[in-house]
Amino acid sequence: MSGSSSLAQARALDAEDELADYRGRFLPSGDEELTAYLDGNSLGRPPRATLDRITEFVRQEWGSRLIRGWSEGWLDLPERVGDRLGEVAVGAAAGQVVIGDSTTVCLYKLIRAAASARPERREIVTDDGNFPTDRYVVEGIAEELGMVVRWLETDPLTGVTARQVSDALGPETAVVTLSHIDYRSAAIVDMGEITRVTHAAGALIVWDLCHSVGCLPVELDELGADFAVGCTYKYLNAGPGAPAFMYARSDHHGLRQPVQGWLGRHDPFEMGPGYEPAAGIRRFVSGTPPILGLLGVSEGVELVAEAGIDRIRSKAVALTELAVTLTDEWLTPHGLRLASPRDPALRGAHITVTRPDAARLVDRIIAAGVLVDHRSPDGIRLGLSPLTTGFEELWRAMDTIRQLAAEPL
Amino acid sequence: MSGSSSLAQARALDAEDELADYRGRFLPSGDEELTAYLDGNSLGRPPRATLDRITEFVRQEWGSRLIRGWSEGWLDLPERVGDRLGEVAVGAAAGQVVIGDSTTVCLYKLIRAAASARPERREIVTDDGNFPTDRYVVEGIAEELGMVVRWLETDPLTGVTARQVSDALGPETAVVTLSHIDYRSAAIVDMGEITRVTHAAGALIVWDLCHSVGCLPVELDELGADFAVGCTYKYLNAGPGAPAFMYARSDHHGLRQPVQGWLGRHDPFEMGPGYEPAAGIRRFVSGTPPILGLLGVSEGVELVAEAGIDRIRSKAVALTELAVTLTDEWLTPHGLRLASPRDPALRGAHITVTRPDAARLVDRIIAAGVLVDHRSPDGIRLGLSPLTTGFEELWRAMDTIRQLAAEPL
Repeated sequence: MSGSSSLAQARALDAEDELADYRGRFLPSGDEELTAYLDGNSLGRPPRATLDRITEFVRQEWGSRLIRGWSEGWLDLPERVGDRLGEVAVGAAAGQVVIGDSTTVCLYKLIRAAASARPERREIVTDDGNFPTDRYVVEGIAEELGMVVRWLETDPLTGVTARQVSDALGPETAVVTLSHIDYRSAAIVDMGEITRVTHAAGALIVWDLCHSVGCLPVELDELGADFAVGCTYKYLNAGPGAPAFMYARSDHHGLRQPVQGWLGRHDPFEMGPGYEPAAGIRRFVSGTPPILGLLGVSEGVELVAEAGIDRIRSKAVALTELAVTLTDEWLTPHGLRLASPRDPALRGAHITVTRPDAARLVDRIIAAGVLVDHRSPDGIRLGLSPLTTGFEELWRAMDTIRQLAAEPL
Repeated sequence: MSGSSSLAQARALDAEDELADYRGRFLPSGDEELTAYLDGNSLGRPPRATLDRITEFVRQEWGSRLIRGWSEGWLDLPERVGDRLGEVAVGAAAGQVVIGDSTTVCLYKLIRAAASARPERREIVTDDGNFPTDRYVVEGIAEELGMVVRWLETDPLTGVTARQVSDALGPETAVVTLSHIDYRSAAIVDMGEITRVTHAAGALIVWDLCHSVGCLPVELDELGADFAVGCTYKYLNAGPGAPAFMYARSDHHGLRQPVQGWLGRHDPFEMGPGYEPAAGIRRFVSGTPPILGLLGVSEGVELVAEAGIDRIRSKAVALTELAVTLTDEWLTPHGLRLASPRDPALRGAHITVTRPDAARLVDRIIAAGVLVDHRSPDGIRLGLSPLTTGFEELWRAMDTIRQLAAEPL
């Protein structure tokens, strides 16, 4: 064994890793059987600070301040945490990001808002490899508004190209909605160019940042994006089912979102007749903010701020590079194929390898204490979350996969 | 001082209170200045069990089981906790209640689903005293579906009457949506009769149980209700912004809800093309369930189960009876008027008293360590949450209010 495939080399990468100490900022797994966690791209680990913050919150704020907490800071947490997330992770100036409902509900609100800006146009463009919930939301909206979905057929290995989008755009296109990073291959699409061609056709774009927020820099303001949503329980480590965020560029704050609730109203406690939307991003809020979930988002964002998104991105590249090298050396001989981009500039923080019997192989890998994802039909997804994944951990996981892949199933 | 207005009498009521020990099941407020908490109808206190459960969850489940948690019980928590809530608090057989998004989002989904069952009808009936978010959601839906809202003008003291609803119903009525208990006066409306007249007119009904769930028995199945939503952070003590529940009677599970997401799909992890709704109540789920919030709901429901909804209701009656007596004896002489029903059978678990300078008076009351609500323009709302409010606590709060009401403001 030589080069980057030796254990010594993996250890050397850990020794050089400027973010290595962040692993200690998360709660350890008490599970002795678990040797590697390669699913931080699906559910991030709990930061120690989150447990402390929630415990303190329940005792000192919920328990002691009680109802007063709402006027002492809880009520504007969606914007305050949103502003911070915008600054730290997605390149959004203050006043354009708010933490809200589930990713699905956020997508629904923003795609509807975008469609309302182009009421005379009848088409929504998305791709058949978009994350399932995005596709289902789009289908539902198209059905209720009498619109047509124009499906792009994409190669997961490249993700949607600007040319594909451009070819699909026309005078009927109201909204384009796409994922920044393909959830299977981790292919990064050209956000800037796709946003540009969408605008050139007079349409608006809604970006799904679920697989990019917190693992690489995103520049929403700079790229002129219209809307974006993203999940907080992956690389932001905010906890299972933690609320998603919505970005709406400030010049879209006059648009209507469909779920009109009291906490998106101007002066909600007046409780007056008639919905009058709040100024700014607040109008995208509907009901009472989920405070425990918001605290998880807040702590997760602060860890990313402290580590720095550029250093996180560098480590993601280094981790996926090692994973690709080991795939080539160890797994390809056993019939596994890399199904992610080879160019790290085009790749997020996970890789997928495929083999026809992936489902059974994943069962064996998990039983051996290496947590990975099976992605139907033939994918094995290895998530490499920069704040929590170590190089030796990855090396050992790949070694386990190599051994199991060599055995008859 | 004599009768039920003496401190001795209040203490006697505490001594006889079968639920008195439940106060110890909640975290104490560390706030020395706080002498009474009469806002449990707005935000319930934290159960000790909830803090323990969340702490254990973060360490042992999120932290140790990690992504495996989803297949080890998290994924069906919305239905499991829903079933339990249905059984314990709202009279719903299994398979008809699910815990989901905010109350506002839940209302949106269910009113839209109800409207889809009567596509040829153009009217939604509600009342101008309904809780603000209900009114705003209804306005938004009417606008998007080209429907008309027929507003009932109600007297908060009685709430909506079946006669009023009946008079407003017609061949154009698609949906009626009302609150079971008026959020100002605590007037209980006649759910059974209103449901009956609504059905007789061929319309469907969506009940808002925010101010009744957990403080009195509700019998959704028995009354033949179509849909209901309710909030969990009031009498269910699930925490600020905890997720609401949705009830959909089993024969309405074929209806379409608008926010089509992956976790409401049949076999979500197949991630296949096309939204195919899950069987049963699950189709009303959209995105990833908010697990921390769900744990709060679960613990809150278990406390209600243990205490028993009938005993909770009895104590609510006793508490509001004492509050009414003390209002008559102590507050009316100082210009405060009871704005809640005198008949306990028609009254939930809070009362409202009014005086034109209520806003300033409430500031003084709160500064004196008694937490109450101001309800614009002239209401002071006293919430008496049976599991956490004591009779002496109430007596002292009323004594404080009496003293402040007697002073010039």
